[in-house]
Amino acid sequence: MALMEDMVELGRRAKAASRELARLSADEKNHCLWAMADGLVAAAPALLQANALDLEVGRSLGLTGAMMDRLALNPERITAMAQGLREVAALPDVLGRVLDTRERPNGLRLRKISTPIGVVVIIYESRPNVTADAASLCFKTGNATILRGGKEALNSNRLIAETLIASARAVLPHFPAHAIQVVPTADREAIPALLSLTQYVDLCMPRGGEGLIRAVTECSKVPVIKHYKGVCHVYVHAAADLAMAEEIVFNAKCQRPSTCNAAETVLIDRRVAPAFLPRMAARLATKSVEFHADAASLPSISEAIGGSSSVARLAQPQDWETEYNNYILNVAVVDGVEAAIHHIHSHGSGHSEAIVTADRPVAERFLAEVDSAAVYWNASTRFTDGGEYGMGAEIGISTDKIGARGPMGLDELCSYKWQGFGSGQVRA
Amino acid sequence: MALMEDMVELGRRAKAASRELARLSADEKNHCLWAMADGLVAAAPALLQANALDLEVGRSLGLTGAMMDRLALNPERITAMAQGLREVAALPDVLGRVLDTRERPNGLRLRKISTPIGVVVIIYESRPNVTADAASLCFKTGNATILRGGKEALNSNRLIAETLIASARAVLPHFPAHAIQVVPTADREAIPALLSLTQYVDLCMPRGGEGLIRAVTECSKVPVIKHYKGVCHVYVHAAADLAMAEEIVFNAKCQRPSTCNAAETVLIDRRVAPAFLPRMAARLATKSVEFHADAASLPSISEAIGGSSSVARLAQPQDWETEYNNYILNVAVVDGVEAAIHHIHSHGSGHSEAIVTADRPVAERFLAEVDSAAVYWNASTRFTDGGEYGMGAEIGISTDKIGARGPMGLDELCSYKWQGFGSGQVRA
Repeated sequence: MALMEDMVELGRRAKAASRELARLSADEKNHCLWAMADGLVAAAPALLQANALDLEVGRSLGLTGAMMDRLALNPERITAMAQGLREVAALPDVLGRVLDTRERPNGLRLRKISTPIGVVVIIYESRPNVTADAASLCFKTGNATILRGGKEALNSNRLIAETLIASARAVLPHFPAHAIQVVPTADREAIPALLSLTQYVDLCMPRGGEGLIRAVTECSKVPVIKHYKGVCHVYVHAAADLAMAEEIVFNAKCQRPSTCNAAETVLIDRRVAPAFLPRMAARLATKSVEFHADAASLPSISEAIGGSSSVARLAQPQDWETEYNNYILNVAVVDGVEAAIHHIHSHGSGHSEAIVTADRPVAERFLAEVDSAAVYWNASTRFTDGGEYGMGAEIGISTDKIGARGPMGLDELCSYKWQGFGSGQVRA
Repeated sequence: MALMEDMVELGRRAKAASRELARLSADEKNHCLWAMADGLVAAAPALLQANALDLEVGRSLGLTGAMMDRLALNPERITAMAQGLREVAALPDVLGRVLDTRERPNGLRLRKISTPIGVVVIIYESRPNVTADAASLCFKTGNATILRGGKEALNSNRLIAETLIASARAVLPHFPAHAIQVVPTADREAIPALLSLTQYVDLCMPRGGEGLIRAVTECSKVPVIKHYKGVCHVYVHAAADLAMAEEIVFNAKCQRPSTCNAAETVLIDRRVAPAFLPRMAARLATKSVEFHADAASLPSISEAIGGSSSVARLAQPQDWETEYNNYILNVAVVDGVEAAIHHIHSHGSGHSEAIVTADRPVAERFLAEVDSAAVYWNASTRFTDGGEYGMGAEIGISTDKIGARGPMGLDELCSYKWQGFGSGQVRA
């Protein structure tokens, strides 16, 4: 009960802060962002101390090396956080954009303009730099944030938020003190309590593994924009330039396999499988890729990787729906574009898919029918990214279809409202 | 368990149908809509028979007169449903609109285009005409629908859906048979089961009273776009043209009090209260409006309505947050625009609010700061409506901020995706 009261208070304060944020000008907000960046750099010694406490907690929890690395701050990471804030300050203001205008026969003029969403809850795992990233993007778009990072990062996250607030208030005394709040408890029950507050919270954006996202979706009564997983496909069509296809598959799988937009499955048109499979497999073997192949492709792959450090085995049913985040690739032979689309719709996660072909009608069909956030013709799936799209910054990638889909930049952190300009119009 | 299996089957079929719908051209869909309209008219005798069974159920459930009226079909209502389908056919196609284009330094061209959402669940109460309305708007935008009307309308709803499907298939044999489905059971557990199917259902739109909406939001794991209630305000500023203010208040309260965009509360600037309260009260007394007034306005209102059939009493705290749907009006005196905005944010539902003033800076502040789906300057709140906005048709009004806000027409039944056009680009 005390927990629920605390969450209500957190939500109430965030909503009040969001009203005040809505009154700040773009210049005032950018001025604050610059001050926040300087403030983080100045607070580096204190941040490292707070982080040391978290690292101790992490060690006592038995976190793995990779998790400890994500949790750790160091001077370079603090500088990078500050630089991120300055980059957000330099981005154009996206509030107040006129999205639609209508003049009605009765003379009423209507205008649809972009607005802040209001109060955004961000739930994430270890990395404390997300605190500054997410808070700054939400602040730039006039949103108040309630941040809930990993329990092992609580000291770092609190001090980062306090530093951001104090730095902003030093240059803008009416900066709302509750514009950026960190959930002050590691209690797991805080999340369902917070996400029941439909009167205060307008949106939740969980960032992390599929387990976290499902848990949030399961309990939330407020809208959630989420990213379940990235099971991305490259389809090599019969009319593909095979050299291009080889580069795209290699890039989509190997350039950074840990990312959500890396490919997990390559679909190869039966007509080019004999020519393409050996060269693809040999190329991927240079990165020791492990192949989970269907019966039609396995013999050819096994032969091509002989003598390399790659291995290949028959794909299991669950493989087609697995995000490996690693040097593992599913391979299937398909009979044409319809079969490829069917495979993608049956097993994909609606994230990013690519077709490699010189045949325009086939490409257009693929681009039109594949129901994913991003579909590419003759380009790597790795491009699904706010930076690569020229959004300047990214708060995540949505595999949802409501609110935002694909990379989420500042525009996707906005809602809208209608303004009506009349001269006494009443409804007949 | 059998229920869950049935819902999974419903969802699976809807998702498959949505893939087929995505391939239909605008012409094919419009052709189907015309055939559906003719089909409904031709099926009128059977529809009236099915509806008679429902009316019997309604009687046995002890429905009120108003509810029985909403449930009833008659030849005029069937004709109106058919006409609605023809109007949807005549609307422009909103799919495939180019919402954004970007050309990146590496030559990759990006295009953001509108797409269907996929599978939409519509949950509503008695009125069977919603079945045809909602299904046709979703179909026009390439979405498959799963419809769940009131249990007392099941026979009517099923036959309407069957008629739509059969009529479409008669002119377009590859029209997907599961594009429009009615939940085949009145079991209440069907709703949480259906709304747990995140792999099949992309959106739920509940239409009805606050209880229904809260129950749906409570159980849903899929995104919900909702409309809780309309507690709309008119603020009469000190610089208002009082004749205009009187017309706008009268229209906002009395033109159709049962609608969500009717005003429930009038806020009156203290500086004009002595001049405005008596004329407003006298005017509203012509419609026997009941006043729930704050202490500052009650004496003046009571005096003005003396001798009329209107009554007035002191407002209770819950009054300020009540959607009356009736000839009842809250009245409060406020000190300026800031206090008016504060009242609206404290008690409103984020639906529609209006300011009446001749002072542009004050109006601009109100339009900028009031956090509602629609804000009007010198116009009635009653304009928040898809038809009045020129959207051609409306599936509802959203008080949410994610996905859609305010009137929802065809545009708001779309999602989007990114298409990337490359020439072999890979990520560096």
